Amino acid sequence: MSATKIVIALGGNALQEAGTPPTAEAQLAVVKKTAEFLAEISCKGYEMAIVHGNGPQVGRIVLTQEIASKINEQTPAMPFDVCGAMSQGYIGYHIQQALSDALRSRNRNIPVVTLVTQVVVDAKDPAFQNPSKPIGQFYTEEEAKRIADEKGYIMKEDAGRGWRRVVPSPQPKKIVELSAVKRLWNTTIVITAGGGGIPVVENMDGSLTGVAAVIDKDLAAEKLAQDIEADILLILTEVDKVCLNFKKPDQKFLDHMTVPEAIQYMEDGHFAPGSMLPKVLAAAKFARTYPGKKAIITSLFKAVDALDGKEGTVVTMA
Amino acid sequence: MSATKIVIALGGNALQEAGTPPTAEAQLAVVKKTAEFLAEISCKGYEMAIVHGNGPQVGRIVLTQEIASKINEQTPAMPFDVCGAMSQGYIGYHIQQALSDALRSRNRNIPVVTLVTQVVVDAKDPAFQNPSKPIGQFYTEEEAKRIADEKGYIMKEDAGRGWRRVVPSPQPKKIVELSAVKRLWNTTIVITAGGGGIPVVENMDGSLTGVAAVIDKDLAAEKLAQDIEADILLILTEVDKVCLNFKKPDQKFLDHMTVPEAIQYMEDGHFAPGSMLPKVLAAAKFARTYPGKKAIITSLFKAVDALDGKEGTVVTMA
Repeated sequence: MSATKIVIALGGNALQEAGTPPTAEAQLAVVKKTAEFLAEISCKGYEMAIVHGNGPQVGRIVLTQEIASKINEQTPAMPFDVCGAMSQGYIGYHIQQALSDALRSRNRNIPVVTLVTQVVVDAKDPAFQNPSKPIGQFYTEEEAKRIADEKGYIMKEDAGRGWRRVVPSPQPKKIVELSAVKRLWNTTIVITAGGGGIPVVENMDGSLTGVAAVIDKDLAAEKLAQDIEADILLILTEVDKVCLNFKKPDQKFLDHMTVPEAIQYMEDGHFAPGSMLPKVLAAAKFARTYPGKKAIITSLFKAVDALDGKEGTVVTMA
Repeated sequence: MSATKIVIALGGNALQEAGTPPTAEAQLAVVKKTAEFLAEISCKGYEMAIVHGNGPQVGRIVLTQEIASKINEQTPAMPFDVCGAMSQGYIGYHIQQALSDALRSRNRNIPVVTLVTQVVVDAKDPAFQNPSKPIGQFYTEEEAKRIADEKGYIMKEDAGRGWRRVVPSPQPKKIVELSAVKRLWNTTIVITAGGGGIPVVENMDGSLTGVAAVIDKDLAAEKLAQDIEADILLILTEVDKVCLNFKKPDQKFLDHMTVPEAIQYMEDGHFAPGSMLPKVLAAAKFARTYPGKKAIITSLFKAVDALDGKEGTVVTMA
């Protein structure tokens, strides 16, 4: 029997804890803890790939460059796709180092490697008409208008806190480096499509051009799970189970959702956009694509139990 | 007959041209030109991996962070190993995108992918006793002493231009992600050990810890060429051939050097440290390891001719 194949989508809490300083050293300490849980999954005999988020990290890279570019012409700000590529190097390095160490300490010597990964989005994706994902720092209205004029950025007012640049969040259409993921799959744990992948559009001649956009990492993980025909899409987040009426008196944890139920709950507004909603969406998409397979949404801490069927919220077609 | 295996070490001029602005956009334009030459090598049927430099890029990442960290506590400076990882993401992304495009336009659909790559150095390497590689910005003597006290950095006076942080440049001992390079080798062009690799030391328990150091990228490429038993180590730089008495009246271009000749020329001080010296050293090391094989030092523009035996400086054991 061949090993069960899992694509793991790692939430932000796997990389940074609330209240810790925004340093690389603090991130590495959190990643080392995360790696212990991931190593336990590997030790159960699962084959896996890892997709991680990059929101706070790429935000800091953008902010760092915005600050430095105003002061020194030798440090111009870089386009957003390049910032994403840098965050893949940064986060991937930490995960591959920490996970290798955690595996080695368990006498499980499986190599772990990060692939710099581009993900194609459709230039006609409606998201490009309605950029919604805020990145970088807050500006006054006046500054925001000047930046919009100067650089062509879309700036939006953010809940009374000031103005920020917004970028579109289009759907992932194709993982460019998929063949390398497949080639490495059964010998190596691959970290890929970090931050949802570096967003690129395909030109008429087939060439690729980076764009300023954020691909949801859960949807990128779902695309990967589809493409490699994974058995399980495992979405790890801060909560052990998906919840209806979250933080209300009649809050209810779910052990299982069918795809039709998930769609209903989404329509009823149970899940917050940018938080649980994309996770349930990705899970439902995977379960619908492969009716015999399942997606699981749970926490890092309950991941092994969830794979054993004892924890988490399982999403299946029926 | 199996394909000839080449490890290519790309010099700084393959990524940035003198006089162009230090932007990511300018880099991508240069990388696109570089990719045309690399695609031509692939079209000749060679199998290849690419190791690139990262000096100016990682220097700007460090400088950007130094500036921003003084102004905003949300953007602390990151350790130097992390800056290297970020530069691998940044540069690797550009090369893999541009080279894929250049190959596609030649109807040669070979995937190109960047591996985030750690390279082990020996904590007892004598380089750690004599840090010599300057990174980041210039400081006054007073600032330098304060930084040395605060952060434990080694600061040195740099040829009358001010004080700079210096880091050691130890020898590459092991490419951590080698198995993935090997696994991908015959189907994929792999970009690996960018900037010489992220330098790490091996702890007593086998775990790895990043260190502030710069591994020479030509020596890292040589290590890779040894490890994968490449047929040719191709070191690309700004000049078409290695030169004795460089820029002097009796300047002499070399078509060929034996290892003993190369050693003699190095001892006679013909090659500048940090420039041609590490290239000749890497070439001689490879040729000595595999007496039947060769290293070539030439320019990007003459690379194909050099592989045909018509250009460049060839280094062989005898």
